[in-house]
Amino acid sequence: MSSKDGYSWTESQGLKAGVPTIGAISPPSNFKDNNTKYDVIVVGAGYCGLTAARDASIAGLKVLLIEARDRIGGRSWSSNIEGYPYEMGGTWVHWGQAHVWREIQRYNMQNELEVSYDFTRGINKYLLATPEGTQQFTHEEEDALMQSALHKLVNIDGASGREAIIFPHTSKLDPIATKYDRMSIADRIAEIKNDLTYNERMGLEAFVLLCSGATLETTSFYEFLHWWAMCNYTYVGCIEYLAKYKFKGGQSSFAINFFKEALATGNLAYCFSTPVASVRNSPAGVEVTSRNGQTFKALKMISAIPLNILNDVRFDPPLSPGKKAAADIGHVNQCVKVHAEISDKDLRSMTGISYPHNKLSYGFGDGTTPKGNTHIVAFGGDANHFHPEENIQVTKDAFHGFTPMKIERLVFHNWSKDEFAKGAWFFSRPGLLSDHLPDMRASQGNIIFACSDWALGWRSFIDGAIEEGTRAAMTLRSSLSERSHL
Amino acid sequence: MSSKDGYSWTESQGLKAGVPTIGAISPPSNFKDNNTKYDVIVVGAGYCGLTAARDASIAGLKVLLIEARDRIGGRSWSSNIEGYPYEMGGTWVHWGQAHVWREIQRYNMQNELEVSYDFTRGINKYLLATPEGTQQFTHEEEDALMQSALHKLVNIDGASGREAIIFPHTSKLDPIATKYDRMSIADRIAEIKNDLTYNERMGLEAFVLLCSGATLETTSFYEFLHWWAMCNYTYVGCIEYLAKYKFKGGQSSFAINFFKEALATGNLAYCFSTPVASVRNSPAGVEVTSRNGQTFKALKMISAIPLNILNDVRFDPPLSPGKKAAADIGHVNQCVKVHAEISDKDLRSMTGISYPHNKLSYGFGDGTTPKGNTHIVAFGGDANHFHPEENIQVTKDAFHGFTPMKIERLVFHNWSKDEFAKGAWFFSRPGLLSDHLPDMRASQGNIIFACSDWALGWRSFIDGAIEEGTRAAMTLRSSLSERSHL
Repeated sequence: MSSKDGYSWTESQGLKAGVPTIGAISPPSNFKDNNTKYDVIVVGAGYCGLTAARDASIAGLKVLLIEARDRIGGRSWSSNIEGYPYEMGGTWVHWGQAHVWREIQRYNMQNELEVSYDFTRGINKYLLATPEGTQQFTHEEEDALMQSALHKLVNIDGASGREAIIFPHTSKLDPIATKYDRMSIADRIAEIKNDLTYNERMGLEAFVLLCSGATLETTSFYEFLHWWAMCNYTYVGCIEYLAKYKFKGGQSSFAINFFKEALATGNLAYCFSTPVASVRNSPAGVEVTSRNGQTFKALKMISAIPLNILNDVRFDPPLSPGKKAAADIGHVNQCVKVHAEISDKDLRSMTGISYPHNKLSYGFGDGTTPKGNTHIVAFGGDANHFHPEENIQVTKDAFHGFTPMKIERLVFHNWSKDEFAKGAWFFSRPGLLSDHLPDMRASQGNIIFACSDWALGWRSFIDGAIEEGTRAAMTLRSSLSERSHL
Repeated sequence: MSSKDGYSWTESQGLKAGVPTIGAISPPSNFKDNNTKYDVIVVGAGYCGLTAARDASIAGLKVLLIEARDRIGGRSWSSNIEGYPYEMGGTWVHWGQAHVWREIQRYNMQNELEVSYDFTRGINKYLLATPEGTQQFTHEEEDALMQSALHKLVNIDGASGREAIIFPHTSKLDPIATKYDRMSIADRIAEIKNDLTYNERMGLEAFVLLCSGATLETTSFYEFLHWWAMCNYTYVGCIEYLAKYKFKGGQSSFAINFFKEALATGNLAYCFSTPVASVRNSPAGVEVTSRNGQTFKALKMISAIPLNILNDVRFDPPLSPGKKAAADIGHVNQCVKVHAEISDKDLRSMTGISYPHNKLSYGFGDGTTPKGNTHIVAFGGDANHFHPEENIQVTKDAFHGFTPMKIERLVFHNWSKDEFAKGAWFFSRPGLLSDHLPDMRASQGNIIFACSDWALGWRSFIDGAIEEGTRAAMTLRSSLSERSHL
């Protein structure tokens, strides 16, 4: 099975659009009857929509799941190429992430994880490439550098953020959080710049931009602090939570369980490759119309549509002013994530920064392929944006910006040009959360809006998507049971 | 509403058995028809049984919940006295605990938490009372002492345990884990004793015994390492996860949501105050007989009976040899947890150790009561065991072992004399986990055994109970759906 999404490149095959994935769903629909009135239409089959659809169908509700793509997973999916998974979007998970870990254990997949890095052999170095040249450090020196730099960034309270952000799961930012949300990372760096070494500043900026996929000016300082709090207020926590444990079989091996479980209830109808054009939301229920003119009706709708494409669906009545404002502002993450399979075995234990001149600013050894080659994953973003499919040589050069390597394969998904995402994981520009987080979370008439983009905890993460799908299904069940008591 | 469980003491009222709780269920049963054949009988209404019963009833199964006590919550429940909650057992929660946090957000209770300690006023000291006298330290000095001591204890790999225990969620211990599970904490301390200061050793021993409720000889070193791994391999993590955030309204304000949600499905029958005497487990189903001779039938049973009382139920056919061996060994936690309401406002910011001579070895300010009094919680255990209701003066003296204080009220639950627990939260003696963790987890015929005592992650915690209840409901649904395909 393949999806139309994603790209791969090899010397012999050149650039190919579409990659194999176990997340592609065939046949694309099990849907026969246009006149059925469902309890709920779930729009979007990423982790949020899958969770909502699954929970609702287990609870005995009649569910129709509509998805624009030909696959499940939304912004988190894996392509399995020659028996090896490449993660096209969201990748890493940890038992400290409540919602995703609950599901991992529920599907008995806790033994299906592996560690991305492997420092047991090879060069075992941290490469810090800046316009002034490339320096090499041990990983212990890397940790010390990053820890020192990040501590200076987040130490707003003399307690590394631990006292300033004591309850991170909040939809209404308190005055302290609001203050930092109005600041960009650039603003914060201006405050501490005289206390940072050159290397600290390079490492710090590259790391924050790895998180935000944006620019220093468009990255909310609070949102980074929020990530920091979720990562236990430590750099070690960032590594453990953000980039250590991943599925041996890829994200799609996990997501497919949600879909299969929902299907097994007998309560799930679904339509893939069915982009939604418009939604009519009246007291009697919702009517969803696809771009090809099909209409579907239900009592309720769960919209798992990401923030950056909310404006591409016509809502009648229109989105509330606050939600519309949030959609107009959008989130700022234009992360460029590219995988390279390279024959340089020694680079398995490489981590590196190439910043700010290089188009990929963060990279590290992420696995060993069945051929024994090294798998490097690298990240760029809005600060030095490019489209990796446009010129493969440019993409390869961006990898060489860390250190020379022999590239045999490239795999990636261009999230910026993806019409159903228009960006990667959510990251807030200054002020968006203070002004509009409650707006983004609010229901409207018969529509429940749920998305990782406005989760309370691991906002932007797979965990946050499941958090939101769970909330949506609970909200749905309680609103339908109120209705049935009328 | 009151439970028969628990004790309170005040000067004017003396010792009273039974305390008020919103976890008491009245009427004790909604059960009318003895001939109904349920899909499942869940025995035990702690978090594990509640989760299993709730998940099964949401999924449309007919559930009968049988509980020996007059209340929900098992080893985690709160008594609300004069508008203030005292936690009789399991108390603290954190967003890094997957299963419990998922439920906290699912019930929209993330804003119902508060922080136990308050170092903003009062003496703000750490009191270290040993047979050599009482020393006073700042809390920063306390953290440094404990961090140093615990690092020496767990640093088996030069990485503070981080490399030795890289995948903590395992039912089959690997050779390294097994090695440390065969060792007691006493064995480990013998290895490092020449590297510990006197104060470090006192702090270390008191802290480990606070975790295990046992003796140094009966505490598995691996099980402590496992706690340590779950706490992010840091002392700061231990504080954050083990003793920081609790419910403003008490645990029972959380547990009641599970019960109410299950009830609202219309699929839950229940009998409280109904201890189970025997269980017949045949290919046709299960037959459960209560002590008063009632019998109940179902296709399946979920036993949420704790390890230490498994032998008090007669199973026919008998428990498998491995499970029987585990039940014969039992767990070693005989924690004594006592609350004191005291009029000394300055002690709100006290933390203290009184060890090894004192009957309560660990204590700290846990809240401020509506009267403005200080609430101190203190812990003893098997190393210097006592029954707090037997002699109130002895109990008060144990509080004075930290520092003199004016005690107005005592509240506690004697878990050691509780016939339905025979101990507090699970803690493993050396070897039990290596030899019998898979045995404890195994199903037998139509019985699924689920309990926090053999959870994989936060074993012994509320989180582990929910983990196990979730697993049980999943196992149940999948076994019933196989059956229906026959």
